[in-house]
Amino acid sequence: MTSFDDLIAYQRDTEALNQISGRLGWDQETMMPRGAAEQRGEEMAAIEAVLHARRTDPRIGDWLAAAEAPDAAGARMIDLIRRGYDRNRATPARLASELARTTSVAQGVWAEARARDDVAHFLPALERVVALTREKGAALAAAGFGGGDPYDALLDDYESGATAETLAALFARMRPRLVALSEAIEGAANPPVPLKGQFPAATQMALAEELGTAFGYDWRRGRLDLAVHPFSSGSGNDVRVTTRVDETDPFMCFYAAIHEVGHATYEQSVDQAWLLTPLGTGVSMGVHESQSRIYENQLGRGRAFTGWLHRRMADRFGATGGLSAEAFYRTVNRVERGYIRTEADEVHYNLHVMMRFDLERQIFSGDLGPADLEAAWNARFAQDFGMSVDRPANGLLQDVHWSVGLFGYFPTYTLGNLYAGCLNLAMRADLPDLDTHLAAGDARPATAWLAEKVQRHGALYPPAEVIERACGFAPDEGPILDYLETKFRAIYGL
Amino acid sequence: MTSFDDLIAYQRDTEALNQISGRLGWDQETMMPRGAAEQRGEEMAAIEAVLHARRTDPRIGDWLAAAEAPDAAGARMIDLIRRGYDRNRATPARLASELARTTSVAQGVWAEARARDDVAHFLPALERVVALTREKGAALAAAGFGGGDPYDALLDDYESGATAETLAALFARMRPRLVALSEAIEGAANPPVPLKGQFPAATQMALAEELGTAFGYDWRRGRLDLAVHPFSSGSGNDVRVTTRVDETDPFMCFYAAIHEVGHATYEQSVDQAWLLTPLGTGVSMGVHESQSRIYENQLGRGRAFTGWLHRRMADRFGATGGLSAEAFYRTVNRVERGYIRTEADEVHYNLHVMMRFDLERQIFSGDLGPADLEAAWNARFAQDFGMSVDRPANGLLQDVHWSVGLFGYFPTYTLGNLYAGCLNLAMRADLPDLDTHLAAGDARPATAWLAEKVQRHGALYPPAEVIERACGFAPDEGPILDYLETKFRAIYGL
Repeated sequence: MTSFDDLIAYQRDTEALNQISGRLGWDQETMMPRGAAEQRGEEMAAIEAVLHARRTDPRIGDWLAAAEAPDAAGARMIDLIRRGYDRNRATPARLASELARTTSVAQGVWAEARARDDVAHFLPALERVVALTREKGAALAAAGFGGGDPYDALLDDYESGATAETLAALFARMRPRLVALSEAIEGAANPPVPLKGQFPAATQMALAEELGTAFGYDWRRGRLDLAVHPFSSGSGNDVRVTTRVDETDPFMCFYAAIHEVGHATYEQSVDQAWLLTPLGTGVSMGVHESQSRIYENQLGRGRAFTGWLHRRMADRFGATGGLSAEAFYRTVNRVERGYIRTEADEVHYNLHVMMRFDLERQIFSGDLGPADLEAAWNARFAQDFGMSVDRPANGLLQDVHWSVGLFGYFPTYTLGNLYAGCLNLAMRADLPDLDTHLAAGDARPATAWLAEKVQRHGALYPPAEVIERACGFAPDEGPILDYLETKFRAIYGL
Repeated sequence: MTSFDDLIAYQRDTEALNQISGRLGWDQETMMPRGAAEQRGEEMAAIEAVLHARRTDPRIGDWLAAAEAPDAAGARMIDLIRRGYDRNRATPARLASELARTTSVAQGVWAEARARDDVAHFLPALERVVALTREKGAALAAAGFGGGDPYDALLDDYESGATAETLAALFARMRPRLVALSEAIEGAANPPVPLKGQFPAATQMALAEELGTAFGYDWRRGRLDLAVHPFSSGSGNDVRVTTRVDETDPFMCFYAAIHEVGHATYEQSVDQAWLLTPLGTGVSMGVHESQSRIYENQLGRGRAFTGWLHRRMADRFGATGGLSAEAFYRTVNRVERGYIRTEADEVHYNLHVMMRFDLERQIFSGDLGPADLEAAWNARFAQDFGMSVDRPANGLLQDVHWSVGLFGYFPTYTLGNLYAGCLNLAMRADLPDLDTHLAAGDARPATAWLAEKVQRHGALYPPAEVIERACGFAPDEGPILDYLETKFRAIYGL
């Protein structure tokens, strides 16, 4: 065994344990009896302690010093392991365990606060999380991450290579066109109508399964369950998806399922040779989100695929609210300002993200204290969306992210949309017949293209590089904005 | 922190990780996508390696040397930890990991062999498992376990205090009365009739849930799912049960559910103060089986409870095969010689166990080679049951135990029956109205009695002692044999 082999063997075991931790997370959200929550907390703490000890084990440093990469993939593995090791070592053990404990409690407090619309209940917990996360950012910055900037040092963990400065410039370029489109849509005559009717839960789930199949999700290595907040989970050969059901709004179930299938198919499609290695998973949150968003929107909400969905819903439910195929397409793509990011249409989604990005940078820099955050949120929301937040659950308390210390995470959602726009442009050029397949309910040619161009590479290339290799051009905001304008001007007759 | 506190804190984390490992086992049998099997193997190996390293960590030895027990429960914890530590240290690491790997493969080979009725396919794997298990027994015996006897050293892990010699004497006392009862039943006129009809799976599962409730299973800390081979899993506040469904034989579903609820209720009822400590789980396989068997047989198959079940089946299915309540009770308790231990009636079950006990002692002593095992099995089965084994899946290949190295485990099933007999005698004396409650479908008074007398103690007392404390007399075979003779002579009009 060479040092490289030792390093990778050790890393595989760590990743196997990490997969176990993820599976427990899945269990917690889908299967776990309620009364097990406290015991589960102890179980999670025990495995997280094992993982933290392994990830900071000094033997990794010794192996890294001696390891020689056999090839380019091996060199990338070494880079990724070194990066993770250095990050973990840069965070003091005391801080890591305090963050784990604090965020675990804060997440529960946040859920209570949201249920009770009680921001005051959440504030003390948020203050502790912010203080600890800033401390972590500072420690990472001191070790040279994020070019020495604490926020960028956190961001780097979700989207390697991204910086607040470039993101701010990107968002500044995107905003005017999104706002103009949103305003034009507001003034449009004859907007699409909402869906009416009752759609039984079991039938929704059966159709959600069909959707998974349509997008090439490998059921032999996955499964679909219900969860309050849909997510996908796992890497390699055990990648599970969840969705939720509202009997008056089946699109919630269907598009959450397609979205999570996008994430899951990425994980399932990574080269099997890299199973449990640092390359054996999606490379960044942004690239991950590009897969979920292109499945959900550019493919799943396109005219071709909704035509098929319209027929399947008629078959399954006996009715689709009396809508024609064209009206159904327009209904699926209704644009409407609303409070909730996760329910936002394609036009408004990025405006939600931009608002959070600006607020969290202010929190992080210390310009905005958690106590003033609700007022800042509401003011900014009124400014961006022209609506008063009616209650905290529809405002500051809607997202879990900050309660668990995920600062620097939100902007990756918009990067995902941007990448999806680029990939869609390139894929459509490569697959001129794609809509014919989509119209027949078969998105597998798209999955095959994405698997070949993006998914199979796992973490082999840095985020922007894998997108550039796939598209043949460096990713920028042009394609997603062009796509949105073309699509929604047509739908709204602008 | 004292050494005792350090020791217990460490042990709690180990047990938390052990619970995780158990949960993965549950997932594997109930939820896991088929294509995940190989990856799951790597995950299980990784967590088992962590557990083995923790269980043999020399710090345990240091803490044990310095620990002072604060009370009797603490002293028992120290004893149990020392016993586990000494056992784990006595097994060379090389042997432990080879056994883990070999049995994991052998279990798969056994399943294939059983499906194909191909003993030859299984033999090489069995030979390796036998060799390694004998080596383990010898290593434990050399360290003083089992009084220096290798088989007893293994047995000691499943039923502390039991020896082959006392078990052999016990079985020799039990056998004549069981054989006499079986033969008398064979000659009886007017035997019970089998159940006829189709019983939809979903309705069976709904009624199985009712059965869990009837026996006091805490659904807030558990759940019921389907599995090919029913089992219960977990300790403390996350204890899950499984059952199986055959649409022509609902008793399979119902009595497997009651059996597993017996195991699970034992785990759920252990004093919460001992959660994740060495006392926080059932004390032995025999005592565990006493709970599952008393729920299944003395309670669940009694006349009072079957009267309620008869009505519930009529309500749920619209029919119970046209049987009266009394005929239904006789049908539930039909005695019939058969090939399969897990499907055996109360009269024949222990004869299956005794046969395995004798064979495995011969294998273990080296008097019987794996190559000659099938012939020995078939000859012994013909002798004990008067039937020729028609195919290996109904003979040697029916049980998983030997493929995974569980030698010394089978006799605990009969000990469980023996303990159940004793507990039933004592419980009926304490609860003269119990049948009134059972006839109304409420077995919770029995659960309350068992929880108070046995279950809440977890592993506080050694196996025979907890039974003696519960019953007020030292356990022996008298009560179970009296119970069987009384019950089945009445049913068969002998």
